[in-house]
Amino acid sequence: MTRFRLLIEYDGTGYVGWQRQENGPSIQQAIEEAVFAFAAERPNLAAAGRTDAGVHALGQVAHLDLARETSADTLRDAVNFHLKPQPIAILAAETVSETFHARFSAIGRRYLYRIVNRRPPLALMRNRAWQVQIALDGDAMHRAAQRLIGNHDFTSFRSSICQAASPVKTLDRLDVEQDGNEIRIHAAARSFLHHQVRNMVGTLKLVGEGRWGPDDVSAALAARSRSAAGPTAPPEGLFLAEVRY
Amino acid sequence: MTRFRLLIEYDGTGYVGWQRQENGPSIQQAIEEAVFAFAAERPNLAAAGRTDAGVHALGQVAHLDLARETSADTLRDAVNFHLKPQPIAILAAETVSETFHARFSAIGRRYLYRIVNRRPPLALMRNRAWQVQIALDGDAMHRAAQRLIGNHDFTSFRSSICQAASPVKTLDRLDVEQDGNEIRIHAAARSFLHHQVRNMVGTLKLVGEGRWGPDDVSAALAARSRSAAGPTAPPEGLFLAEVRY
Repeated sequence: MTRFRLLIEYDGTGYVGWQRQENGPSIQQAIEEAVFAFAAERPNLAAAGRTDAGVHALGQVAHLDLARETSADTLRDAVNFHLKPQPIAILAAETVSETFHARFSAIGRRYLYRIVNRRPPLALMRNRAWQVQIALDGDAMHRAAQRLIGNHDFTSFRSSICQAASPVKTLDRLDVEQDGNEIRIHAAARSFLHHQVRNMVGTLKLVGEGRWGPDDVSAALAARSRSAAGPTAPPEGLFLAEVRY
Repeated sequence: MTRFRLLIEYDGTGYVGWQRQENGPSIQQAIEEAVFAFAAERPNLAAAGRTDAGVHALGQVAHLDLARETSADTLRDAVNFHLKPQPIAILAAETVSETFHARFSAIGRRYLYRIVNRRPPLALMRNRAWQVQIALDGDAMHRAAQRLIGNHDFTSFRSSICQAASPVKTLDRLDVEQDGNEIRIHAAARSFLHHQVRNMVGTLKLVGEGRWGPDDVSAALAARSRSAAGPTAPPEGLFLAEVRY
């Protein structure tokens, strides 16, 4: 058996998320079926981040084991061929040692969240950004975001179905950049709780609107209660940007 | 009658182009029908650039005349409402004098052409860029592009069905920027011939591959023959970015 690591880009629109589910097509299933079409094997794909329905990836990482002898480049090209016409692409494949695990070996994850702040609906960015009509103050959002940096109990930003053993995480980076009517939020940590990025973004939007100040964000964090923080931002603005090992 | 100027964004995928045609849905028809749904009038929309099938717009401009009294903001919001769920958005509307004409009053047009230079297929940029697998030298493309700047007979870069009275145009800008595996080509002129940008891009690709040098581009221009220049780049990479008045 050879273990391969895959770097994957996808448009999550129309998928139930990364993970196989009964109720619709998943990214995992699509890639596993493309691997089967090529190698006549059904390996289980393990991913660094199990993205939700509608969430995209610029650099998801997954691994799989194959008995068939093949080069990593051949695997990449063959899986891309069999994935057509789905909006999923293997950007790179490489052989790794059997000690490598896409999820457990990861030492850092970075997400990008895109907001387009305008009144008209989105045409070219549809399903790839959150359209917010009310004017947002990106600088205020950035300053308030710094209250969340560091090692904290993030219960207030955790989905009720989160399966993590502990709500304590270390947030390394939460930067808000405003460029014209586009706002980009960069979040980096070793790992995140379920919905953590989207819940932080939904909370920062309250700051951007002027309804909340930095102290409200600190109070929401301290409350350790999901109801204390803002609503969950929609999935279409979220991109798993990078996984570090 | 009041004349309104519209600033329009659209994803041209799946449309036959700007202009009404018998053989499928057009951007013009979609907007005209949305105007009718709001105002019960069927004004003809005149656009600055009649984009081809699959070509996008970040800033198309069109005008129309309405008998119904309405504010420009109301028109914008109502047309956007009736355009749903199509990927077409009115970014702005304003009243203009009856001497304004979206096409004939324009004094400058700028196009953006996006290439993603990589072997794997496109997932998130699908239908919004030209995927080129062979490695391109963006600097070489930029240097060669400068041979096309100025007032020339652009017959070599003109579609056989171009209806312009003269093949002589003044190209003000043709810049090639390379950023990682993305290449962006910016083209600006008072006006362009049919397929001119796509034919220039297809020619510059030959330079990027190393098959052509700058002198070949100059020779193609001097030949005044469509067969002397490179192939037509595909529509999905082209965006009408801005129209100046």
